[in-house]
Amino acid sequence: MSKNIKLNMSRRIRRTPYTNRVEEHGVSDFTVVNHMLLPKGFKNSVEDDYWHLSKNVQIWDVSCQRQVQISGPDAFKLVQKLTPRSLEHMETGKCFYIPMLNENAGMINDPVLLKLDDDMFWISIADSDILLWAKGFALGLNLNVNIIEPDVYPLAIQGPKAEELMVSIFGEEIKKIKFFNFRILDFLGTKQIIARSGYSKQDGFEIYFKVHEEYFDKIEMGEKLWDTIWEAGKKYNISPGCPNLIDRIEGGLMSYGNDFTRENNPLECNLEKYCKSNSSHDFIGKEALTKIQNDGVTQKMRGVIFDGKPSNANGHPLKVFSKDNLEIGQITSGIYSPRIEKNIGLSMILKDYWDIGKSVIVQMLDGEKRNGTITSLPFPD
Amino acid sequence: MSKNIKLNMSRRIRRTPYTNRVEEHGVSDFTVVNHMLLPKGFKNSVEDDYWHLSKNVQIWDVSCQRQVQISGPDAFKLVQKLTPRSLEHMETGKCFYIPMLNENAGMINDPVLLKLDDDMFWISIADSDILLWAKGFALGLNLNVNIIEPDVYPLAIQGPKAEELMVSIFGEEIKKIKFFNFRILDFLGTKQIIARSGYSKQDGFEIYFKVHEEYFDKIEMGEKLWDTIWEAGKKYNISPGCPNLIDRIEGGLMSYGNDFTRENNPLECNLEKYCKSNSSHDFIGKEALTKIQNDGVTQKMRGVIFDGKPSNANGHPLKVFSKDNLEIGQITSGIYSPRIEKNIGLSMILKDYWDIGKSVIVQMLDGEKRNGTITSLPFPD
Repeated sequence: MSKNIKLNMSRRIRRTPYTNRVEEHGVSDFTVVNHMLLPKGFKNSVEDDYWHLSKNVQIWDVSCQRQVQISGPDAFKLVQKLTPRSLEHMETGKCFYIPMLNENAGMINDPVLLKLDDDMFWISIADSDILLWAKGFALGLNLNVNIIEPDVYPLAIQGPKAEELMVSIFGEEIKKIKFFNFRILDFLGTKQIIARSGYSKQDGFEIYFKVHEEYFDKIEMGEKLWDTIWEAGKKYNISPGCPNLIDRIEGGLMSYGNDFTRENNPLECNLEKYCKSNSSHDFIGKEALTKIQNDGVTQKMRGVIFDGKPSNANGHPLKVFSKDNLEIGQITSGIYSPRIEKNIGLSMILKDYWDIGKSVIVQMLDGEKRNGTITSLPFPD
Repeated sequence: MSKNIKLNMSRRIRRTPYTNRVEEHGVSDFTVVNHMLLPKGFKNSVEDDYWHLSKNVQIWDVSCQRQVQISGPDAFKLVQKLTPRSLEHMETGKCFYIPMLNENAGMINDPVLLKLDDDMFWISIADSDILLWAKGFALGLNLNVNIIEPDVYPLAIQGPKAEELMVSIFGEEIKKIKFFNFRILDFLGTKQIIARSGYSKQDGFEIYFKVHEEYFDKIEMGEKLWDTIWEAGKKYNISPGCPNLIDRIEGGLMSYGNDFTRENNPLECNLEKYCKSNSSHDFIGKEALTKIQNDGVTQKMRGVIFDGKPSNANGHPLKVFSKDNLEIGQITSGIYSPRIEKNIGLSMILKDYWDIGKSVIVQMLDGEKRNGTITSLPFPD
């Protein structure tokens, strides 16, 4: 279909401090997230990369996970208004996954929030301009905050050997970083935030690499970080990689813009646990969300396992039908899982059909119909 | 460099009602604007397309020019706060180019505003999420407005034969549409906004095609529009096209994200005439802009003509130096002009060097130095 369409390069599609390295490693595909390049493939197939990721370690340029830095006296007040998740007991050094809603309780992003201090937060965003959203809202409310996109370029180290590799560079303190926590460690005399997190179901870390232009220029310092990890990684069979579609779908990791949009509310996305606000916590979309909580939702994100030859369903969603031929959903991310040995996909499914184990029909783009089954997420082992 | 890197397709990079047609015509490159595909090349070279555009007519899928629809009792109040340009005397049926600023007077977009009625506006945006910006600000101020992204997919008809072609489809009323005005005309029983405008220095129109799902589905209706224009266009030697880099740079048409960013203020972009607000007009960035107006700017957008073999400077800006070897700017969009028979580019240039006719040095990516000259914009004939 659109397999060999080139991406036209321009300054607007921003390069990262690692783009030179990524090109040297033979990147084959990019996508664009937050006006920035995200590598989507190298020399190996998605399936080879999947097996590699599950057994070794990879280095991913995820600079497109831009940070929105909110600081100042009203920083906490603002951040708390931006999400239904309560931040009351959030400690410095923690990472929180937070849904962000518009006035209709539609999802406008699903970032990870980092608390750097009581009056300093980073929102590590999916693909929408939360810098403008947060700033517009703060200006309207006349809050005393400073909101910027700092010079931070996350680099992910993912896979079962990630910890060993990171210890070899940053020392034993790496082991003390718990899942969705961060610590501040030294790299070439600069302080860097390192979190145990990442967009895979493997263990791994994200280095929130901040440029310190007093020491080096941006690209020089980014390449030093990349090269340091690459050299140390050789004994762990490191390879360049990127968020892996098979691993991500198996892990039930949704992608904003792909699997859910501002047309979806957080309850449809199985995010109930982040929507348990109390009466004193005011946030954008609260009234609409409360109504949805009372009325219940009409569809929910589910896994679908389906038969037939290995298939990919990304540019064009695949329609899902009930056995009695009603359209009940669409697979928005889908691929063949070599582990499950079936095709797997993510789909919002209508209420009467969303029970685990229910039989469905998946319609391919050429009209072919395949038998499928509703599953829980993450996909069962 | 990155010449053959593929664009990875996914639902997040939205297709348009015309994407099937664009693919059938052999699109070779896409870019991504506002989370949507923008074709950037077909079978011909940029130079062949440039000559074709200057003599014939082209059809461009510019659906990525998303509309932010602001309606309701406070619509005018909000829109006026979003730009330093006074809208006091703007009439229904007019299109206004409006800079949009953040609190530091940095440019966050440079859209075209359409006034549909006293309480109904469309903001036709460049590449940043103004939907979130406007909505966040309105929520903070608690304004009585409704803000949505309507189901509108602009299609541009550009080139000297555009008027004749459009008359053959929509009738003689097309001729009455003046530059940067629109009229509402009929297509298959639906009302459609047609403006005389477009991102080229040729004559042309933009059809703000709105899907009327009560009649047709989105793709079916989009393809009917495309096919109608294509069939009628054959006698005018129509071809599929896209904003042409040579035509755009020659015409001095800046691109947001490429030639200027939120690091730039509107005075640096030669937009003084849209910044003559009076004391009663309050807008975001007014205080910062007033200070800049008083202090003066330190750089301004200029044209640069330079020697040497045909060169392209898009993914990687080219540094510009003064004769005494000071770095004074960078060419952010550059290409060879077959009409001028020199390379041309757009660059912010430092104050002491921005005079028209000044000699400069342009440094290519391989270090080669080329002689150049500062010019006015648009580039002189």
